[in-house]
Amino acid sequence: FDEDELNQLLTRLTELEPSELALALESMPLEQRLNCWLGLAAEDQVSALTHMRVDARENIFKQLDDQQLRTLVEEMEVDDLLELLEELPPRLYDYACSRLDASQRRWLEIALTYDEDQCGRYADHDLLILNKNARVRDAIRLFQSLPEDAEYQETLFVIDRTGRYAGQVSASRLLGRGSHLPIESFIDDEAPVVDGQLDLDQGSDMVSRSGYTALAVVSAEGKLLGRLSIGEALENVRRSLESQFMHTAGLDEEEDLFAPVFISAKRRAVWLGINLLTAFLAAWTIGLFEATLQEVVALAVLMPIVASMGGIAGSQTLTLMIRGLALEQITEQTYVALLRKEIGVAALNGLLWSIVIAVITFFWFGSWLIGGIIGVAIIINIIIAAICGVFIPRWLDKLEIDPALSGSVILTTVTDVVGFFAFLGLGSLFLLA
Amino acid sequence: FDEDELNQLLTRLTELEPSELALALESMPLEQRLNCWLGLAAEDQVSALTHMRVDARENIFKQLDDQQLRTLVEEMEVDDLLELLEELPPRLYDYACSRLDASQRRWLEIALTYDEDQCGRYADHDLLILNKNARVRDAIRLFQSLPEDAEYQETLFVIDRTGRYAGQVSASRLLGRGSHLPIESFIDDEAPVVDGQLDLDQGSDMVSRSGYTALAVVSAEGKLLGRLSIGEALENVRRSLESQFMHTAGLDEEEDLFAPVFISAKRRAVWLGINLLTAFLAAWTIGLFEATLQEVVALAVLMPIVASMGGIAGSQTLTLMIRGLALEQITEQTYVALLRKEIGVAALNGLLWSIVIAVITFFWFGSWLIGGIIGVAIIINIIIAAICGVFIPRWLDKLEIDPALSGSVILTTVTDVVGFFAFLGLGSLFLLA
Repeated sequence: FDEDELNQLLTRLTELEPSELALALESMPLEQRLNCWLGLAAEDQVSALTHMRVDARENIFKQLDDQQLRTLVEEMEVDDLLELLEELPPRLYDYACSRLDASQRRWLEIALTYDEDQCGRYADHDLLILNKNARVRDAIRLFQSLPEDAEYQETLFVIDRTGRYAGQVSASRLLGRGSHLPIESFIDDEAPVVDGQLDLDQGSDMVSRSGYTALAVVSAEGKLLGRLSIGEALENVRRSLESQFMHTAGLDEEEDLFAPVFISAKRRAVWLGINLLTAFLAAWTIGLFEATLQEVVALAVLMPIVASMGGIAGSQTLTLMIRGLALEQITEQTYVALLRKEIGVAALNGLLWSIVIAVITFFWFGSWLIGGIIGVAIIINIIIAAICGVFIPRWLDKLEIDPALSGSVILTTVTDVVGFFAFLGLGSLFLLA
Repeated sequence: FDEDELNQLLTRLTELEPSELALALESMPLEQRLNCWLGLAAEDQVSALTHMRVDARENIFKQLDDQQLRTLVEEMEVDDLLELLEELPPRLYDYACSRLDASQRRWLEIALTYDEDQCGRYADHDLLILNKNARVRDAIRLFQSLPEDAEYQETLFVIDRTGRYAGQVSASRLLGRGSHLPIESFIDDEAPVVDGQLDLDQGSDMVSRSGYTALAVVSAEGKLLGRLSIGEALENVRRSLESQFMHTAGLDEEEDLFAPVFISAKRRAVWLGINLLTAFLAAWTIGLFEATLQEVVALAVLMPIVASMGGIAGSQTLTLMIRGLALEQITEQTYVALLRKEIGVAALNGLLWSIVIAVITFFWFGSWLIGGIIGVAIIINIIIAAICGVFIPRWLDKLEIDPALSGSVILTTVTDVVGFFAFLGLGSLFLLA
């Protein structure tokens, strides 16, 4: 990787939008990533970092010395600082604050009174604000002062003298209006408002469904805290769905593609350990039937089929439930109808596949008895799997545990134990001499 | 569910945004859903349908007679018709077309020349268009003619006399400008353009990263086909990530929470059948070692642990790869670095957990030899799982098969077969007298 190549790469990188630049940096191995990042202009360095995943961003921060961090901090505005606060070494926090002007420091203080998952914490402070007694000409001046690369700034926010939010006005409503008219008369009464204490995911959903390009985020006292734009809403929706997907494998959405081997291994070890416990539970269940297995070795050969069919059927129900819960589609009333439907599906598929498996087993081991036993065990396991697939995520959701993360481990434990127990139990009952 | 309750529910439903209304209808069991939907105003009926998932929408269409369908079709504009075309019985297609005006029919014909996954097919035709020689006052009139509930309409699109796209102009740029000035001079040269043949997912990514609220969709000849707004882009991003999640369980993102039992069972049966094949392959592998299992029954008890650890480790690598491929982060160069990193992680975790499992096995069965055998089998299986976790999705991606859908089945087959083979094979070598 010589200097020429690096320069060519840098030229291409600087042409990208910030979110694309961040993605491109994340897709490089650590050393190359750091070299490219160091070659960027200070302004691009900050915007790349704010758009990167936490882990990827941390892997850059760790490589910087205090002098580099200071230079970086000098480029940060209040929103950058809020986004990067976690990764910034605490000793630099005061320095970073001292570089902000008074109004930005005030925004920072207010934002920090909110939790990390609340809209008030991540409200964007780069917004057009006008006083209630302003006129159309002031609004026009404000819109004309926007930089060329302003994003989703088609709306200005109106406050009263005490900083309380009074409404939003979109640029298109002001077109062709007399410049002396009060801005107040163009406020859009329909525009909803995001409560600063609202969960960031819910706030993002609200913005994305509202049809507005940005909504005001407002404190309990009615003060304007900032805005939540459709661009940020989209990033949050993306992050939240990506995390649902990553959680199914016990991973975090912040996981860096090129995390250092040791760190990555340490994190994943936890997930493997949890799964090992469930595997031992399954093994222990099998261990209960050692005598049976010794006598009828066909049971040992066939037993993974029972566990696997239950696991697959259950995970289908589980996945449907997780989506339904995330979309807030599962209510007390619909829940029973859903359970009934899933049991119906399980009974039909259980019946179908248990017959198929019983027939194959007969041809393989020449015993209708073993075929019948595996068939019954499979029906039992698939139906239990469907019931658990509905109950487990609901129960986890009530306990405020993410069903996408823990649902499948618990479900697999149940389907393994039930599957082995039903199959080997029936085998012991009917096959032991 | 009496009439009073229905009316109350309907009052609440009509207050929702179209996408929320669609979600609310989807979360009702079929009969209730149909009753609610029938109670809506014709206009809301259409907008609910266009926002619903395909399966949920189909389950309503199936219940309607020709008279109801005709009334429905009369409410449809060109974009509704394009969205609902698949579900509409073909005999009503001509009637639907005859209800459109000439310009809408023209849009429809052009849209239908594009494939179902292309931007040209789903370009929104509800957009502000102005001729190149128009002046600022024409633009102002156009913006002022927008209905109250217009969404993401802060931009107008300029075409020349032949319908070729010339650029977009945002409302805020026109504020305070002389009404006689030519509109052409306010065109935003930076705004990118979406090629009509571009994949819808890629087009949506483009809009979402551009910072614009809408981009023009343009044909190969440069003709304006419509627009792709940030609202639609967000819905597409949501759909594409949701489908990635649903695919991990062999489900479709269009899956209806309350699909009729028989239809749902039929679909899921396919997935269970595919998994049964892999389960039988695993069973067949075990069957090769019947003699060994008969002699050392501990192997039968422990073998699911080997398969399970490989499966879990592999699915972590697989999930990381699927995300990386979806974000287009995996290139020829980074691929080797990634493989090396994943093998490193696997070797570390393999070593750690094989020692833990070996020690537990010793205490359980009192044999260091069995402990050593399971340890070695686990290291082998976890490393093979990591290699396959990198190779399989990449290989599927090259074949244009969705790795989120088929990756885990193939991977589990490998980890099952390798796990059983390594463990029982080593057992046969060292434990048989």
